[in-house]
Amino acid sequence: MKKIVLIRHGQSNWNVENRFTGWTDVDLSAQGLDEAREAGKILKKHGYVFDTAYTSVLKRAIRTLWIILHEMDLLWIPEHKTWMLNERHYGALQGLNKAETAAKYGEDQVYLWRRSVDIRPPELDKSDERYEAADPRYKDLKDGEVPLTENLEDTEARVLRYWNAEIAPVISAGGRVIISAHGNTLRALVKYLDQIPPDGIADLNIPTGIPLVYELDDELKPIRHYYLGWEGPYPEGQIPAHMTH
Amino acid sequence: MKKIVLIRHGQSNWNVENRFTGWTDVDLSAQGLDEAREAGKILKKHGYVFDTAYTSVLKRAIRTLWIILHEMDLLWIPEHKTWMLNERHYGALQGLNKAETAAKYGEDQVYLWRRSVDIRPPELDKSDERYEAADPRYKDLKDGEVPLTENLEDTEARVLRYWNAEIAPVISAGGRVIISAHGNTLRALVKYLDQIPPDGIADLNIPTGIPLVYELDDELKPIRHYYLGWEGPYPEGQIPAHMTH
Repeated sequence: MKKIVLIRHGQSNWNVENRFTGWTDVDLSAQGLDEAREAGKILKKHGYVFDTAYTSVLKRAIRTLWIILHEMDLLWIPEHKTWMLNERHYGALQGLNKAETAAKYGEDQVYLWRRSVDIRPPELDKSDERYEAADPRYKDLKDGEVPLTENLEDTEARVLRYWNAEIAPVISAGGRVIISAHGNTLRALVKYLDQIPPDGIADLNIPTGIPLVYELDDELKPIRHYYLGWEGPYPEGQIPAHMTH
Repeated sequence: MKKIVLIRHGQSNWNVENRFTGWTDVDLSAQGLDEAREAGKILKKHGYVFDTAYTSVLKRAIRTLWIILHEMDLLWIPEHKTWMLNERHYGALQGLNKAETAAKYGEDQVYLWRRSVDIRPPELDKSDERYEAADPRYKDLKDGEVPLTENLEDTEARVLRYWNAEIAPVISAGGRVIISAHGNTLRALVKYLDQIPPDGIADLNIPTGIPLVYELDDELKPIRHYYLGWEGPYPEGQIPAHMTH
């Protein structure tokens, strides 16, 4: 039996400000730093050890990982940082306040942009200063790989490309893996692992800073999963019935 | 012209306690954390940018790097952590107080252990709990690669093995590189780069937490080097005449 740990980064400053973040490189809030420390302590308390870590190229996920590795005294393990684990790209919504956007476009439209699997937010214009193609961290991406917007299926496609090429072989070879990433990249991965149908994912929400353990069989099919250190019953929507094995 | 930055980790807790450290995984002191922050700020102020980072598998070097990358907003660059950049192994002296050791063996003997290129401190016994072979971070090392003790030439050999195989090709290809490591690994590298003879290295000391810039030509031969943000004249022994080009 193989065990992996998924962790959604701690609260960010734009979580606090209620803005769409996507690929914007927003830092953790003070609470987010605390959440990361707590996650590290819980993992250590439960005796977890990792051989390899994966994260995005966004600092809220990287700092969450670093704080966890520090708490676990595992700073020395190899880290792999990839844009393919970045948060879903939120297109022209990036930076906008969620409440203001809802007031302007309606709650229903914002819900579709946020939670549907196939609807994309409006595209960023390539002349928009928010377009990330000039950022040096994306300089090795092929033409067209820096998104203008994404739906969950787009995010899932790149997450799975990385999972299949880089992460899954390491897990199959016995590597104990932690993935520090984002709400939608982890939703995409969970959707794939648990074979959740498109209409079952909308209200699945992964809480920030709580280690989500997946136990996998030799074919990397999930046996069961659970949150570490979660007190009390799961809040509604955070662990739907079809996810509890 | 290529530019690389070498940084010796900030002050560690055993620097404060005046103990031989070697491969012991001692953390940074409060002052060491400050030194690392200051190094990051100076590098950022001078407009440095890095594409790739190299460090040891010891937390005092890794944390120094992480703090620098945080200050420079470069958390996302690839990091390579290797035992081949670990501090010189100090054998059976690891953990001992330097003053007590000098009182026991004499100042001259301790000076030779610390500063000669070819004299090794007494070996660790393989049954000694300080022997690091059981540490998971060294599990992929070949039999005999985990040292029982080292002189500076031993350290230099493994540092150069890594430099030639991994770091030099990246610099040659245009990569802007930072190496966060240890007093003796950096002395070994500087000895090689500047072709310092064995009798010229004894009193060369690299200060903690001060970025040391080497400008290299296309054959990676040093053109000149300097410390960034160093106020006033160099203290004696920290930048010998044959090192100033």
